[in-house]
Amino acid sequence: MTDSGRTFPKGFSAAAMSAGIKPSGRTDLSCVVSDADCAWAFAGTRSAAAAACVTRNRELAAGSGPVRALVVNAGNANAATGAQGTRDNAELAGALGSVLGIGAELVLTASTGIIGHLLPMDRVLGGVEHLPDGLERGADAFAQAIMTTDTRPKVAQATLSTGARILGTAKGSGMIHPDMATMFAFAFTDARVDQGALRAAFPAIVNRTFNAVTVDGDTSTNDMAVVLANGRAGEVDLPEFLAALEGVLRELARMIAADGEGATKLLTVRVSGARTEAEALAAARTCCVSPLLKSAVHGNDPNWGRVIMAVGRSGAALEVERMTVAVQGTPVFAGRPLPYDAAAVSAAMRAEEVVFEVGLGVGDARGEAWGCDLSAGYVSINAEYTT
Amino acid sequence: MTDSGRTFPKGFSAAAMSAGIKPSGRTDLSCVVSDADCAWAFAGTRSAAAAACVTRNRELAAGSGPVRALVVNAGNANAATGAQGTRDNAELAGALGSVLGIGAELVLTASTGIIGHLLPMDRVLGGVEHLPDGLERGADAFAQAIMTTDTRPKVAQATLSTGARILGTAKGSGMIHPDMATMFAFAFTDARVDQGALRAAFPAIVNRTFNAVTVDGDTSTNDMAVVLANGRAGEVDLPEFLAALEGVLRELARMIAADGEGATKLLTVRVSGARTEAEALAAARTCCVSPLLKSAVHGNDPNWGRVIMAVGRSGAALEVERMTVAVQGTPVFAGRPLPYDAAAVSAAMRAEEVVFEVGLGVGDARGEAWGCDLSAGYVSINAEYTT
Repeated sequence: MTDSGRTFPKGFSAAAMSAGIKPSGRTDLSCVVSDADCAWAFAGTRSAAAAACVTRNRELAAGSGPVRALVVNAGNANAATGAQGTRDNAELAGALGSVLGIGAELVLTASTGIIGHLLPMDRVLGGVEHLPDGLERGADAFAQAIMTTDTRPKVAQATLSTGARILGTAKGSGMIHPDMATMFAFAFTDARVDQGALRAAFPAIVNRTFNAVTVDGDTSTNDMAVVLANGRAGEVDLPEFLAALEGVLRELARMIAADGEGATKLLTVRVSGARTEAEALAAARTCCVSPLLKSAVHGNDPNWGRVIMAVGRSGAALEVERMTVAVQGTPVFAGRPLPYDAAAVSAAMRAEEVVFEVGLGVGDARGEAWGCDLSAGYVSINAEYTT
Repeated sequence: MTDSGRTFPKGFSAAAMSAGIKPSGRTDLSCVVSDADCAWAFAGTRSAAAAACVTRNRELAAGSGPVRALVVNAGNANAATGAQGTRDNAELAGALGSVLGIGAELVLTASTGIIGHLLPMDRVLGGVEHLPDGLERGADAFAQAIMTTDTRPKVAQATLSTGARILGTAKGSGMIHPDMATMFAFAFTDARVDQGALRAAFPAIVNRTFNAVTVDGDTSTNDMAVVLANGRAGEVDLPEFLAALEGVLRELARMIAADGEGATKLLTVRVSGARTEAEALAAARTCCVSPLLKSAVHGNDPNWGRVIMAVGRSGAALEVERMTVAVQGTPVFAGRPLPYDAAAVSAAMRAEEVVFEVGLGVGDARGEAWGCDLSAGYVSINAEYTT
């Protein structure tokens, strides 16, 4: 593990350990603890088969109480595990609360990994008992412990003018097509923020960041995004804070897309000229999820017809005769096919990020989404996941 | 080309030729002609970027007139080609009508292939002039000429109790996630059918057949399904005819799924216990489009958690505690994970068709959808399509 030297904001500390949930022996159990009550906001998957952790956190979020800690396990999603799974999840929260000397209702839970297997509770509870022994300010061990098929940890941060900080971490590589949040994004801040204001602003921020990233169109049962604010760095300007929070989450969203299963490059689609922001986002997101466009990006093929196809099926209003498409800055369509140097554009696509700009020609709204290319690696990663 | 000996119903004949649209020199221009006016029904893509042929056929279908002929080109979709593309498409219809001595309004058009390139009209028109010279009753040459990345022609047929026949042909391998129809299904019958009755029944039949097949979630700009009835075999029982038509289209839909780009096997998902048929179809279709489930099927991995995930995001109502899942006939989930022999189920998945049966536990409605596995072959086919 690389040590980036990144630390949590004031009052937060974290611990990670290997509890034996992952057969590989990698760290798979972790927690973040705040020394003061946190205002918080939560967004969870819209899946009708949401996991026990999402359901429990959503119930807590329906109340107005604060939280103090978050416990995360990787390697097992504890989803589709029935009533036993619900009990196991509650027991996990209670166990960490008990070790920390706080009530279970102050502890959020998050599980990620394979669906349909009961948590190995003996190993999990044996681990939780000693987990807080390792609490420290460094963020790297936590960012590492929440990973599944991710190839690298994902951390982003911002510092406000008052000195208050925001640190965000995320995990996610496959089953990424969030519908409210993505598979685990956690942001921690020592800024003092009103819980009502935070919760009011959070859905729109999540919509423009995590809900605009897609790896495969598959929405997880365990997706969640959480922000915890413990106030230890005092008052901040709310608009400044929200803009910084959005910046941190946006950076994490792009990291998730770039680290999509089997990905070799980041795919960015910017849509303008839409009737509404929702339609612009839908058009951009449909491009990013299209297996045909993703395959073309993988092969550095400037096959912009697939952008027309994807936008056409996105539900966004458009006028083909007024549409425009550019690939890596080169205009290729403006109501009709434009002549362009295909070899030069293909060469320009051999980059870490491939950008398509699409104008729909029917309004002024804009939106941006992120995805990745589709490679044979995605298939091999997912063809033998359990066997 | 294999000669299956299959022929068109009475009064229909077809011709196919290589007009030089495909660089490979394969047959790419074809037509079907009826010697009597046909009652007909049409379903076209819901894409907002529909191609010129779909738009023109839809306009014709808005009227009550008959048709007599259909001209198809492969190798070029004539989509996103602006006003010139619209003119070229009309000129193609007019040219065939002129050679046949019938009005252009009696000629349907269908183009398939790459998006965003103008039709090579000199070659197309030069071909059309001689196309009817080769008219014959055999169906194989036509089924072959409409193919693009298909690996095999797709023909299905039925004979009614009166002796009237239905012959259906289809093409489609990638960009398959029809939203009204699939990329070309043509059915021809010599039964006498009332046009109003045919048009009233067609949408529901298309919904249960072509709209239930998916290869990659990408909806084409050129999708269409057409049925032509020339009445040459006389009156038939309408319910018998419609059931036979649905059987033919269903067989074609399964052929398209099995021949999906890069596919090595057919994926069938049967959903029961849904609140409505629409929700059952949505749940089944979401399973078939899931890249994660498709990858697992490719690797013979009985990872049924991905079925839970896909159904969960499908929008269908469900109760996880009452859900059931079976893989190749083996129950693996019934409100909780069931013990099963993973090696035996994996072995059973090494088959031409893999069937998942899913119960949602909230009603009595059923639905079935078809797809295919996701292989590295899909990526390589689509990574360098134009370059």
